[in-house]
Amino acid sequence: MDMKTTAVELLDRIRERVPLVHNITNYVVMNASANILLALGAAPVMAHSRREVEEMAGLAGALVLNIGTLEEKWIEAMLLAAKTADVRGIPIVLDPVGAGATTYRSQAVATILRQASVSVIRGNASEVLSLADAGVTTKGVDSSLSVTDELADAAGELAREHGCIVAISGEKDLITDGDRVLRVANGVSLMTRVTGLGCGLSAVAGAFCAAAGGDLLEAVAAAFGYYGLCGELAHDVSDRPGSFFTAFVDALYSAGADDIRENLKID
Amino acid sequence: MDMKTTAVELLDRIRERVPLVHNITNYVVMNASANILLALGAAPVMAHSRREVEEMAGLAGALVLNIGTLEEKWIEAMLLAAKTADVRGIPIVLDPVGAGATTYRSQAVATILRQASVSVIRGNASEVLSLADAGVTTKGVDSSLSVTDELADAAGELAREHGCIVAISGEKDLITDGDRVLRVANGVSLMTRVTGLGCGLSAVAGAFCAAAGGDLLEAVAAAFGYYGLCGELAHDVSDRPGSFFTAFVDALYSAGADDIRENLKID
Amino acid sequence: MDMKTTAVELLDRIRERVPLVHNITNYVVMNASANILLALGAAPVMAHSRREVEEMAGLAGALVLNIGTLEEKWIEAMLLAAKTADVRGIPIVLDPVGAGATTYRSQAVATILRQASVSVIRGNASEVLSLADAGVTTKGVDSSLSVTDELADAAGELAREHGCIVAISGEKDLITDGDRVLRVANGVSLMTRVTGLGCGLSAVAGAFCAAAGGDLLEAVAAAFGYYGLCGELAHDVSDRPGSFFTAFVDALYSAGADDIRENLKID
Repeated sequence: MDMKTTAVELLDRIRERVPLVHNITNYVVMNASANILLALGAAPVMAHSRREVEEMAGLAGALVLNIGTLEEKWIEAMLLAAKTADVRGIPIVLDPVGAGATTYRSQAVATILRQASVSVIRGNASEVLSLADAGVTTKGVDSSLSVTDELADAAGELAREHGCIVAISGEKDLITDGDRVLRVANGVSLMTRVTGLGCGLSAVAGAFCAAAGGDLLEAVAAAFGYYGLCGELAHDVSDRPGSFFTAFVDALYSAGADDIRENLKID
Repeated sequence: MDMKTTAVELLDRIRERVPLVHNITNYVVMNASANILLALGAAPVMAHSRREVEEMAGLAGALVLNIGTLEEKWIEAMLLAAKTADVRGIPIVLDPVGAGATTYRSQAVATILRQASVSVIRGNASEVLSLADAGVTTKGVDSSLSVTDELADAAGELAREHGCIVAISGEKDLITDGDRVLRVANGVSLMTRVTGLGCGLSAVAGAFCAAAGGDLLEAVAAAFGYYGLCGELAHDVSDRPGSFFTAFVDALYSAGADDIRENLKID
Repeated sequence: MDMKTTAVELLDRIRERVPLVHNITNYVVMNASANILLALGAAPVMAHSRREVEEMAGLAGALVLNIGTLEEKWIEAMLLAAKTADVRGIPIVLDPVGAGATTYRSQAVATILRQASVSVIRGNASEVLSLADAGVTTKGVDSSLSVTDELADAAGELAREHGCIVAISGEKDLITDGDRVLRVANGVSLMTRVTGLGCGLSAVAGAFCAAAGGDLLEAVAAAFGYYGLCGELAHDVSDRPGSFFTAFVDALYSAGADDIRENLKID
């Protein structure tokens, strides 16, 4: 089955089944991630108390862990929720926001990767590079590095090491399971000028994985492609970040099979 | 006095007196709730530290408690603030977000209802049903249940049990004090595709209650009606959630007596 | 060099160098502040854990401390980050949100001013007045007081006492180092009807200070002027708060030297 058909089917399935996506995510993007998931057609829930994360993960179709604005008890909550997700076999998406920028974040990601069965790591180049190589320092949450061949190698190695999908946002996105590599050419650079769009993509990847029965590599690539083409549709409406974001949420809601068949660029 | 006149008077009073609404609410909606209250004409303040909630509630015209993204110390803060609100006789609105979804949230709501003098419970059908009947499990924060007769009975019983208003958002909203029942037909279904619009309504109900001298039942119904008709005005501008939300905030700011007289649907 | 040229140069420098602005700010405005900084051309990072704030402040060009939705451990984190900022000589902007409204906030500001080398205090009149005179009670986060001569005197005294810039938002803004006084006439009143625009200005002041080699007084005035004229540009697009905010973020992104040369009003 080609990627366009896969993407159409997954999007349809999200809109029919409305999977619950449990997010333990940072304060900056909680609202945006919830709106992005709602517009897409999924059901978001944000919950991070140790008192309820297991129960909440027990209701969810996917778990999204995001380490922005991290605090210690949140890591514990993430590990608890991940344990439930693992037992239930639902996908776990990890967004290593700012990994490499501080020791704390790098260690938190290492802990999560060691103790949880992460299905997908979704970050920008500098974040992913920091996971593959502890010697790199990134500048906060920037996305200035491009997806080079060197990075592709590092991503593949990381994917094999953790038995997961590694997905890197960039001018051209790269998604790999350590064996196959898919590249997504959808998206516009203005997306890096709106806060939380990377985190929102991790949440959307969670929704696509929840809808996918099996192949998470293709589900993640479909999520990236659909998300990127919604960015393109929004850019047709506005080339400025405030109104662009509004149009982007609109596009996530209204784009469909025709847009995917015309504009999805995955190879 | 008919409901339209009541609603016009309360809206005028909010815009003249700018009541301070103290919100102890979840991270996802803090920004949206503040913007919704500001657009309406009220003065929002968000504060949850045990060190200041009593003093802040001491300045407020209404207190809004919302259990989304709950943490333990927040419940303590809510109870402290509620004590001050009770002593001062200002209304307390409780939004039981996700009640029924996890034991933690259901217990938190039970604790708050037992220890605080809640004036208004505002939720969707599944949340309110979970308060009336501990055996129901809801799916996160969905609003899929409709306001059936069975639910109306449960709402009435809940209202009498706690001596408060119970207000249920749905296709047709239901507001009851356990004796009278008001139904509000304003609103559009797209409102369920924007995060925080339910929570925002709880905050707006707080503002209307702050402006009302006496009859909270009618104040809550007026809040629901005005909020819903602003949704209708926004829907005239856009049928997609990103631009709809922007238009909705605009409508809360600009709608007035004429809109209420033409469009309010309460019976 | 006149203020217009200064403002143009600082804006250019922000867009070329993309300074990292480390924010320890309140939950309500995190998303808005991040988007405002991104639209302007700076790089925002939000981090408040004691485990990482020193390291993060070590990467930043400016540190912004904001006491809205305050909790105790956040004050500790602010002091840790401020220590690093002080050692590195990067500017610290303090936004005393709601100072005067509760004892807790007033004490927190006093602690921060005593223990950190604050470069800029940015607030509205009631907040700044509460720092100068502990006897004043403010109504939450209102901005109803105007910038009177009495206030100008208090601001000057506060600036001299703490060896910092004091910047007051109002109908006409006042920025002083206790010696010189600059007044900014840009801005529109609708800005007070959108949550987080004051906090966003503190963040933008941080970005301008990061870009300024030396004169922080002029850097802060330039920030106020540019921010206010973006408000004017947004008001040309919309006079309602929802769509106004969207247009405001757009303006922060697209306004440039021509707008500054035509519209900056600083004397």
